Amino acid sequence: MTMIIRGGTVVNADRAFRADVMTFGDKIVAVGENLEAPHSARVIDAHGQYVMPGGIDTHTHMNLPFMGTVTQDDFFTGTAAGLAGGTTTIMDFVIPSPKQSLLEAFHTWRGWARKAAGDYTFHVAVTWWDDSVREEMGILVRDHGVNSFKHFMAYKNAIMADDETLVNSFRRALELGAIPTVHAENGELVFQLQQDLLRRGLTGPSSHPLSRPPAVEAEAANRAITIAGVLNTPLYIVHVSCAESLDAIARARANGQRVYGEALAGHLVIDDSVYRSADLEFAAGHVMSPPFRSKHHQAALWHGLQGGNLHTTATDHCTFCAAQKAAGKDDFTKIPNGCGGVEERMAVVWDAGVNTGRLTPSEFVRVTSANAAQIFNMYPRKGVIAVGSDADIVVWDPQGTRTISAKTQHAKGGFNVFEGRTVRGIPSTTMAAGKVVFDRGVLMAEEGAGRYVERSAFVPVSAQS
Amino acid sequence: MTMIIRGGTVVNADRAFRADVMTFGDKIVAVGENLEAPHSARVIDAHGQYVMPGGIDTHTHMNLPFMGTVTQDDFFTGTAAGLAGGTTTIMDFVIPSPKQSLLEAFHTWRGWARKAAGDYTFHVAVTWWDDSVREEMGILVRDHGVNSFKHFMAYKNAIMADDETLVNSFRRALELGAIPTVHAENGELVFQLQQDLLRRGLTGPSSHPLSRPPAVEAEAANRAITIAGVLNTPLYIVHVSCAESLDAIARARANGQRVYGEALAGHLVIDDSVYRSADLEFAAGHVMSPPFRSKHHQAALWHGLQGGNLHTTATDHCTFCAAQKAAGKDDFTKIPNGCGGVEERMAVVWDAGVNTGRLTPSEFVRVTSANAAQIFNMYPRKGVIAVGSDADIVVWDPQGTRTISAKTQHAKGGFNVFEGRTVRGIPSTTMAAGKVVFDRGVLMAEEGAGRYVERSAFVPVSAQS
Amino acid sequence: MTMIIRGGTVVNADRAFRADVMTFGDKIVAVGENLEAPHSARVIDAHGQYVMPGGIDTHTHMNLPFMGTVTQDDFFTGTAAGLAGGTTTIMDFVIPSPKQSLLEAFHTWRGWARKAAGDYTFHVAVTWWDDSVREEMGILVRDHGVNSFKHFMAYKNAIMADDETLVNSFRRALELGAIPTVHAENGELVFQLQQDLLRRGLTGPSSHPLSRPPAVEAEAANRAITIAGVLNTPLYIVHVSCAESLDAIARARANGQRVYGEALAGHLVIDDSVYRSADLEFAAGHVMSPPFRSKHHQAALWHGLQGGNLHTTATDHCTFCAAQKAAGKDDFTKIPNGCGGVEERMAVVWDAGVNTGRLTPSEFVRVTSANAAQIFNMYPRKGVIAVGSDADIVVWDPQGTRTISAKTQHAKGGFNVFEGRTVRGIPSTTMAAGKVVFDRGVLMAEEGAGRYVERSAFVPVSAQS
Amino acid sequence: MTMIIRGGTVVNADRAFRADVMTFGDKIVAVGENLEAPHSARVIDAHGQYVMPGGIDTHTHMNLPFMGTVTQDDFFTGTAAGLAGGTTTIMDFVIPSPKQSLLEAFHTWRGWARKAAGDYTFHVAVTWWDDSVREEMGILVRDHGVNSFKHFMAYKNAIMADDETLVNSFRRALELGAIPTVHAENGELVFQLQQDLLRRGLTGPSSHPLSRPPAVEAEAANRAITIAGVLNTPLYIVHVSCAESLDAIARARANGQRVYGEALAGHLVIDDSVYRSADLEFAAGHVMSPPFRSKHHQAALWHGLQGGNLHTTATDHCTFCAAQKAAGKDDFTKIPNGCGGVEERMAVVWDAGVNTGRLTPSEFVRVTSANAAQIFNMYPRKGVIAVGSDADIVVWDPQGTRTISAKTQHAKGGFNVFEGRTVRGIPSTTMAAGKVVFDRGVLMAEEGAGRYVERSAFVPVSAQS
Repeated sequence: MTMIIRGGTVVNADRAFRADVMTFGDKIVAVGENLEAPHSARVIDAHGQYVMPGGIDTHTHMNLPFMGTVTQDDFFTGTAAGLAGGTTTIMDFVIPSPKQSLLEAFHTWRGWARKAAGDYTFHVAVTWWDDSVREEMGILVRDHGVNSFKHFMAYKNAIMADDETLVNSFRRALELGAIPTVHAENGELVFQLQQDLLRRGLTGPSSHPLSRPPAVEAEAANRAITIAGVLNTPLYIVHVSCAESLDAIARARANGQRVYGEALAGHLVIDDSVYRSADLEFAAGHVMSPPFRSKHHQAALWHGLQGGNLHTTATDHCTFCAAQKAAGKDDFTKIPNGCGGVEERMAVVWDAGVNTGRLTPSEFVRVTSANAAQIFNMYPRKGVIAVGSDADIVVWDPQGTRTISAKTQHAKGGFNVFEGRTVRGIPSTTMAAGKVVFDRGVLMAEEGAGRYVERSAFVPVSAQS
Repeated sequence: MTMIIRGGTVVNADRAFRADVMTFGDKIVAVGENLEAPHSARVIDAHGQYVMPGGIDTHTHMNLPFMGTVTQDDFFTGTAAGLAGGTTTIMDFVIPSPKQSLLEAFHTWRGWARKAAGDYTFHVAVTWWDDSVREEMGILVRDHGVNSFKHFMAYKNAIMADDETLVNSFRRALELGAIPTVHAENGELVFQLQQDLLRRGLTGPSSHPLSRPPAVEAEAANRAITIAGVLNTPLYIVHVSCAESLDAIARARANGQRVYGEALAGHLVIDDSVYRSADLEFAAGHVMSPPFRSKHHQAALWHGLQGGNLHTTATDHCTFCAAQKAAGKDDFTKIPNGCGGVEERMAVVWDAGVNTGRLTPSEFVRVTSANAAQIFNMYPRKGVIAVGSDADIVVWDPQGTRTISAKTQHAKGGFNVFEGRTVRGIPSTTMAAGKVVFDRGVLMAEEGAGRYVERSAFVPVSAQS
Repeated sequence: MTMIIRGGTVVNADRAFRADVMTFGDKIVAVGENLEAPHSARVIDAHGQYVMPGGIDTHTHMNLPFMGTVTQDDFFTGTAAGLAGGTTTIMDFVIPSPKQSLLEAFHTWRGWARKAAGDYTFHVAVTWWDDSVREEMGILVRDHGVNSFKHFMAYKNAIMADDETLVNSFRRALELGAIPTVHAENGELVFQLQQDLLRRGLTGPSSHPLSRPPAVEAEAANRAITIAGVLNTPLYIVHVSCAESLDAIARARANGQRVYGEALAGHLVIDDSVYRSADLEFAAGHVMSPPFRSKHHQAALWHGLQGGNLHTTATDHCTFCAAQKAAGKDDFTKIPNGCGGVEERMAVVWDAGVNTGRLTPSEFVRVTSANAAQIFNMYPRKGVIAVGSDADIVVWDPQGTRTISAKTQHAKGGFNVFEGRTVRGIPSTTMAAGKVVFDRGVLMAEEGAGRYVERSAFVPVSAQS
Repeated sequence: MTMIIRGGTVVNADRAFRADVMTFGDKIVAVGENLEAPHSARVIDAHGQYVMPGGIDTHTHMNLPFMGTVTQDDFFTGTAAGLAGGTTTIMDFVIPSPKQSLLEAFHTWRGWARKAAGDYTFHVAVTWWDDSVREEMGILVRDHGVNSFKHFMAYKNAIMADDETLVNSFRRALELGAIPTVHAENGELVFQLQQDLLRRGLTGPSSHPLSRPPAVEAEAANRAITIAGVLNTPLYIVHVSCAESLDAIARARANGQRVYGEALAGHLVIDDSVYRSADLEFAAGHVMSPPFRSKHHQAALWHGLQGGNLHTTATDHCTFCAAQKAAGKDDFTKIPNGCGGVEERMAVVWDAGVNTGRLTPSEFVRVTSANAAQIFNMYPRKGVIAVGSDADIVVWDPQGTRTISAKTQHAKGGFNVFEGRTVRGIPSTTMAAGKVVFDRGVLMAEEGAGRYVERSAFVPVSAQS
């Protein structure tokens, strides 16, 4: 039951230091130089390697029923792929249909998630509003460990939350000590631009980014920020993809507002040229919202992570196979939105972030786990290598390389937006809840081993002292 | 029929120069030094004075039925008050009720306006959307000289335009070569803040500004700007009252977008301390939306006018008497919104703008008439002293002083937000359509002398070459 | 002596309108529809064409002794080239050596300029400071029609003005009612970057832009703006070439400061890829300061002209031949800095500005002549088609095309940065001081016909009312 | 030798948690719930209190010879006052005279500091430039534990560093792995404004802020940031006092640049009305540079600390008595610049920061010690309660109150800028290097007990992985 990781450099968000790490059961029990371990302890050699908190992917959609189909990855394959990439916790989304009970949806998702191989927790979406929603938000917070609620400002005629829902839900979240999150895109503008493009016969995937320009995202970000500011709630904006949204966040933060931003691994390194590919299947494979942007925006996102205006990295992992994507072959608005990445995020962010000098290893930990754990109240259980924390650990080989490919990935869907990218810096061993689940390329994920992570409500900032 | 204004300094938006101005009928027929005039010509002595285009107030509400009552000033008294202050043209608003025909409303307003003493023209509000609205917008542009449409982003459950209406109407305006305008306040937030305040028992007028903080205005401004930017239409934002809205305009303009902003005379010089007066009638008298702001915002508005991010000055002249205002004595949300100013704008802007060095006399003309005429396509008929232009002229005495008071004003309502302010720089003579209508304190307004000003559609910018 | 331009559309900064234009001697004497002219009048047919004020190039260096050599264009060939391109007035620079008397330098330049074919005026550079400089600034303003002084913040160990000189000179300009102007680049940083590059063996022209990155320009712009703001003087920044400088201007203007910016035709359309050409002579031909920038900055400059944060267009016309440029073949810091353009500016700005919808024809006039005339106090003598103005007129054929080439240019130097660019929109006729000097491709420039334009001091803004 | 702090809530920058803290000698040896301690251990009861890392004041001037006099506080009284306020480490400044050897000055200061009661370390100022300075910077970094160099951009004709010095020194710092810091004020503008004011007879302390307006500070901040950005060095800006400087930092950080900012406790809560006091001694007592600012700037500074654009809090503790301040009674420029605060900073920042909800306790630790320790490479020796860290601990009583007064302070100088302010939240016990040095109001500082803290050079960011 005791394991010891010897000889590595522990990297936490505040510093990196030489230390061994000992675990017992599912917890870290010692961190220090030259630890003494029982003879029976299993030893993992980490010389020349970094020992870091397992990654937290703040944004995944496993087993998601969407646009008449269901994502390829369920909670088992999705979390297993995460473990293979050094991610030990995912934050998924319960998405009630309009008029559906939040609790009912929550229980449905909890059922689907039982097969997870890694730890998971849920943001719950508020897609409509009435008193029962208000009531159930309270139950979720008090009884079910939910402290974050998601709002889609896009997807008109489906799950889009209008201002009335946003204002009511944000206020309720404030009362409950929960944090609102938003998918920021102005759904009305997207809808109109889509209709325009279709009317003009521009039905292919190259129209997808044209229907969701940066301004459409920035408007919604600014609106959500304003609502949060006026109501005095914190706010978390998922998948910030463009400089203009980031500017809105920077303005708010410079004004003292508690706004947090998430960047997707894909948005950090993939540009919008993918949509102009002559290979329509390839182009459709990249359809997600917000879409990939020009390189100018990538640079801005990195600056956001460096300067502290963005806080987390995630993937919006939501895999559809080519057959599913083909539903939109005559109408880009019918292409199921989503791409994978839960398996690649850590390596992609390390390679494009740390190897280039944009991020230090400590900053890497900050944006791949520590900030997420703090913002969503899982810290220090998650997000840090410390005594008492969960034994969710990734041993990171900074010299190891891997060429990403759908052929070798563990995730389903048969497609990879990072296809062909060679990264330097990969997990050599992943430990989840004290067990080795991935080691030197071999995945040992166990169905059902993952645990639901309850997250307590926050004490409102003004009452924290 | 010939008149000559002798000895003054003509001030246009581009320069000031010594010249006499001769008019014949309703037109200017000569501008030059030492003009020869027929013996029969009436001579107005302008030595030591400025000769400027008559003011254009881009924002008035005469005869407005609102919140169950009607404004005190009708088109006669309102335009007459304008003439007394040097304003010769007003731009009023046709405001159809939701579901009402735009044309029907337009004709109603045209009827009310027949008694006007000064020239007038109409923005038409789009308060709802369906195909008939689209159709009638076309008729108004093609047949009735309307080239600007107004959208209220506030006033939930009444005339508020949601994003769907905004997007549809802006696009239609673009097709027609008309310019959309917005009252920018997030109606949902205002509504919720009002309900909050009332629930907490804060029912007095001091709650009014609390229910409409700057962020609420800036959010809507930013949203309208985004919609306009995505659709590639110009945009005019009425009564910009705060630094944050102005910032949104400045960002858009710095990004090449054609966005115009209007400042109200009141917002330029009156601060929000008025709402905290113990005299509740006084406080209620200042209730308008957006509310008066702190001095910080006044400074920003002046900077906007100086630097070119704001373009026009107006008043939102909308007068209610104390008895009407009293409707909200137990509930500030029921106080009819509106204040006067059509008579004072020119003098207030001169005194606080030119006398302080913030504006040159040419810049004064720019922001009191020339820009308005250009933005709304009345130029050079209005907004300039030039041969062929309407003989709408104000002779301005820069040394004359006046202490503003409800007791001496021509406008109705028995209240004046500028009460007690002494201004230096006042009209000595106003000429409208070639007739002297105000001279050394004597108003000679004639009911029905005002004319409806048709304004042609714009050629879209991209086709202008 | 009477000429009449018939049938065209007069374009001024405030509007475009159908009118004939009649001149007598060197002045415009009538503007109107269907003018009657004496039988003897020469008629220029402008049907289908625009009739605009002759261009003002606010930034040229004719006959400039620089880096041990002298520019190819003297005042005759340079102004003649301008006339061929529709530019009828140039603003050149008197540049005293450190310790040289300003008056002495001024008279030297006046002597050189006597051969000019078009009108000219001078900014005088302040390159050092003591009481005699203060004294001579006064003499220049009072007795010689100079109302603008130039300061080079770059060129360390040569003509660079340090903060002490800037502060003293700006204050003196304020006293005199003159406007300070700056070449904004931090000379110390440029020097150090140059030394670095040379040390690393990077001696070719591709190092030129690396030694002068945007931040270096923006720093100096911001510093000059701060000094002007603290001292309360207006400020004009020459050749703004990058988004960051423009941001500094936009911030200052949004804060009410009177800051004006100039864009060069070259910076608007040429990008920095020219420096990476394998043809080193070609690359050296483009060496000027600030250097050409990436396309991102071009877009920003256009937005600046559209939104009102930039005001004028110029060229920094300063021509060196290949043999002169070769002085720096082993050391890019020895390449004489300078490119041509006085002949092409109007057409390039029209083609890339008006034809693309970025500028209306009136805005074109604003940024090619009217604003320059107003900022530098030559208005309405220059910059407008109006009775009493100089008969400096360009008849513009919006359908005419021309392919720019050093082979066909009138300017000297044997090089053209716009080589091969085909523009639509060209001058068909240029009239200067009432004479036709260019007509359908034929240049009739007369040596010595140009006049020195005296420019009065400004009345300080705060005293203008 | 063993001590145990029982029952408190440990607050680190990343979280607050219930734990006992055990120390042995000068180190922390255990952190955890219900620690077992030897019977001999001294127990400090912290129930109901916070247990936090001792404060780091990043900016003090003890024993400073300045303007012909020497500060009242030497290293003993100054550090002792710090201990009384919960600050266990100060960062002071070695300031060589122009042309003086840096090493010589360093040794002089080391000598003065031997009497310190608390730990200390030194920034070394670079006030001039030649090769010997370059050489000695290297010696200081390699052999003397200096990793930060200070540059005064103000104080013309004294210690002001011009651009040449800044550029050379910043580059040298980069080579050495040290961080440059700046006092950002444009010395030339300050000098000219001072001369102006004196010329106009405005010789009193109320002229002090007029001679150093925010723009003067922001200009220098922007210049230093640009130099750092171009050279690719990090930068630390001391005593950021105004919104405009903060904007410059925010822009740089949003652009990915590593810029850090320091706020002084005084600037966070004191406004510029103090300079307009009729009590000239009181006014002179507040003279420091940058001066106190209007409330608008205070709000901005708090936002900076909250949003992450400011990182540390300090005091610029530099005490002069009334007799010394009187040197400038006829000339405000001769008033020795400086105020105290080392004793009050922690309580003032807690009271105005945590009690108001602006900062959480963890954020308080971040801005009073953790960030300072990380930026200046003393972490985790300083700035965190963790095993192995120095036993510099403050037990904080959130309910304790104190009314600040010169009468009861431990610092010298007989003046206190926080006079009369009652704070809630005060240190009950301070432990430095494992010894209790302050307990329930009783100071037990020991002369010479403080240690010089060596700080290693940084590995350049780009090589950190």
